[in-house]
Amino acid sequence: MADFDPWTVKEIKDYGKLMSEFGMESFDKYQERFDSFRYMRRGIIFGHRDFGRIADAMAKGKPYAMMTGLMPSGAFHMGHKMVADEIIWFQEHGAEIFICAADMESYLMRDIGFAQARKIALEEYLTNYIALGLKVKGLHFWFQSDYISEYYKLRDIGSKRVTFNELEAIYGELSPGKIVSVLTQVADILHPQLERFGGPKPVVVPVGADQDPHIRLTRDIASRLNADRKDEGQAEPDFPCIPPSATYHKFMSGLQGGKMSSSDPKSHIALSEDPESAAKKVMSAKTGGRNTVEEQKKLGGEPDKCMIYELYLYHLIDDDLELSKIYHECKEGKLLCGQDKKNCAELVKKFLAEHQKKMASARKAAHKLIGGKA
Amino acid sequence: MADFDPWTVKEIKDYGKLMSEFGMESFDKYQERFDSFRYMRRGIIFGHRDFGRIADAMAKGKPYAMMTGLMPSGAFHMGHKMVADEIIWFQEHGAEIFICAADMESYLMRDIGFAQARKIALEEYLTNYIALGLKVKGLHFWFQSDYISEYYKLRDIGSKRVTFNELEAIYGELSPGKIVSVLTQVADILHPQLERFGGPKPVVVPVGADQDPHIRLTRDIASRLNADRKDEGQAEPDFPCIPPSATYHKFMSGLQGGKMSSSDPKSHIALSEDPESAAKKVMSAKTGGRNTVEEQKKLGGEPDKCMIYELYLYHLIDDDLELSKIYHECKEGKLLCGQDKKNCAELVKKFLAEHQKKMASARKAAHKLIGGKA
Repeated sequence: MADFDPWTVKEIKDYGKLMSEFGMESFDKYQERFDSFRYMRRGIIFGHRDFGRIADAMAKGKPYAMMTGLMPSGAFHMGHKMVADEIIWFQEHGAEIFICAADMESYLMRDIGFAQARKIALEEYLTNYIALGLKVKGLHFWFQSDYISEYYKLRDIGSKRVTFNELEAIYGELSPGKIVSVLTQVADILHPQLERFGGPKPVVVPVGADQDPHIRLTRDIASRLNADRKDEGQAEPDFPCIPPSATYHKFMSGLQGGKMSSSDPKSHIALSEDPESAAKKVMSAKTGGRNTVEEQKKLGGEPDKCMIYELYLYHLIDDDLELSKIYHECKEGKLLCGQDKKNCAELVKKFLAEHQKKMASARKAAHKLIGGKA
Repeated sequence: MADFDPWTVKEIKDYGKLMSEFGMESFDKYQERFDSFRYMRRGIIFGHRDFGRIADAMAKGKPYAMMTGLMPSGAFHMGHKMVADEIIWFQEHGAEIFICAADMESYLMRDIGFAQARKIALEEYLTNYIALGLKVKGLHFWFQSDYISEYYKLRDIGSKRVTFNELEAIYGELSPGKIVSVLTQVADILHPQLERFGGPKPVVVPVGADQDPHIRLTRDIASRLNADRKDEGQAEPDFPCIPPSATYHKFMSGLQGGKMSSSDPKSHIALSEDPESAAKKVMSAKTGGRNTVEEQKKLGGEPDKCMIYELYLYHLIDDDLELSKIYHECKEGKLLCGQDKKNCAELVKKFLAEHQKKMASARKAAHKLIGGKA
């Protein structure tokens, strides 16, 4: 059985175990160096594999790429915004950006038709990425279902360098569709290293911890594809490449605790949501409050269990001092949940109103980029 | 375990069993109607699935296609010539021709590099097809590894409509590479029905009996892809298509008996072979002769066990009366093996000399068709 796999995981909170058992490295040593970036500074990005290669390329101004995939399966919410912020940060720091819309995966694993997937990828994801600050200049954005043949070839070649046992150990019970889906993800991740994009280069993939099985598999297959095949009478590797690097971020919780999910509107705030409706969700979110006001004044609140605090931490308050003040006032019982939720609701409304102003022109840019393809 | 599968079969002689167990139909009822074609008239093409659809399209002058694949794994020999003759016959009878060079399969299943496969497909297969009479006008010839994305999409969609158990029942032990290879063949066969080629149409695939597992699988997947998915909220089929038809031919034996094989030069005559060397192979071929001349004069020879007779039957003697005369003279002990082999060697030399004259211009046409791709 798989320890955890990206299609069934509900919640992963034991990040320490992931690091010790699966060989992720801690991101601690980069925290200070990249302290301009909220997710890195605050330990939300908590782990990595081979990030040194990326930090080095950044420092020396050498070419490197950032690759990510999106699963077009529903509304674009605050959890997705985190990934968008990471993409944009890497773009601002010199990465060439590759984004894959995983419409074959959503078809095979989630029964979502291609037309619907295309619409969601364009209207929800790409439009929001652009509204959040992604520059389309130099951006590579593609759908799994319509891309170039080298990419498919790469995937097929990969199939020769992996066994059933390896796949089963990672993904649990297999089906033909699942194997195709998995191999496609491997090709997605190696895609920026195709000859037409300049060949081998460092590539960073920012993912949630649940995606680590894909990363490990891809790194293994990449090493094998990059080996020469003198035993098979072939001096050149099947596909010259560098095993991809990854950063791992924690998950935002849903507004009611538990998992934030596209398919459960109560669990998330969508970026296209009416600000008043979003404010109402904030007002009924799970907090770290006590049973009574008296108790809370006496014992203090528990910000580490509070969804409002998570919204600040991940998205709404970039100033550490300001955030720290709220944290301590809550802990000391000075800031109560009612007031705190009101403050948060105002910030959410303000954010959404400003964001949504940018949507029309972002949508235009998204359509222009995808052209006749959508 | 698989009853037989296309990668491990050595010899299939019990054609009756194939028909009764796997539901092939006998070709008998078409034998007379298509008696201008040696392989049909002589029962070398012995079985079919849904050939009625093809016969009907031919009779009414309606569009239909013939699809075949080639495995670029060695010299083009007399066994391959049989397939070439079938392709050409269908082309002369109104079929649009689709030929797939299975370079991904040869890579995954036989460790043949892409550059080598490309060279063999072009220099051995396509060149010989053209020299034998295939017209390049309107011909669709492609490599698995470099074709259009709809084709790969089709393959991936197919992966959702088949289970591991089905694949295992047909192909025995699976591997990721084998699954990719199998799904690619399914897409190859459905390829002529892609929208860009005019959508659904009758397609005939002339194959050896060993390829029937692919045909059965493809027909099953085609039926499922052609069903609507109202249960999945989708009124249109995933891929509108008609399950492909097939004809089944017997195998020529190798010159020493047993299997004719590309990798065993003693077993075959290559079409590019020096005619004198070919003549020598004929002179040492297995015949249906007796131990001594005396015995043979008394008992007669056994043409049904004779490789020389097979060469006549499949390739060298188109006139049934002439063939019948040889058959009976052998049976009656009048025609002895020495003389018979000499006659056959002359026919082989003549055929090869004439064929090889056409190779230079055929090679030119092949290169022109594949263009910069080879």
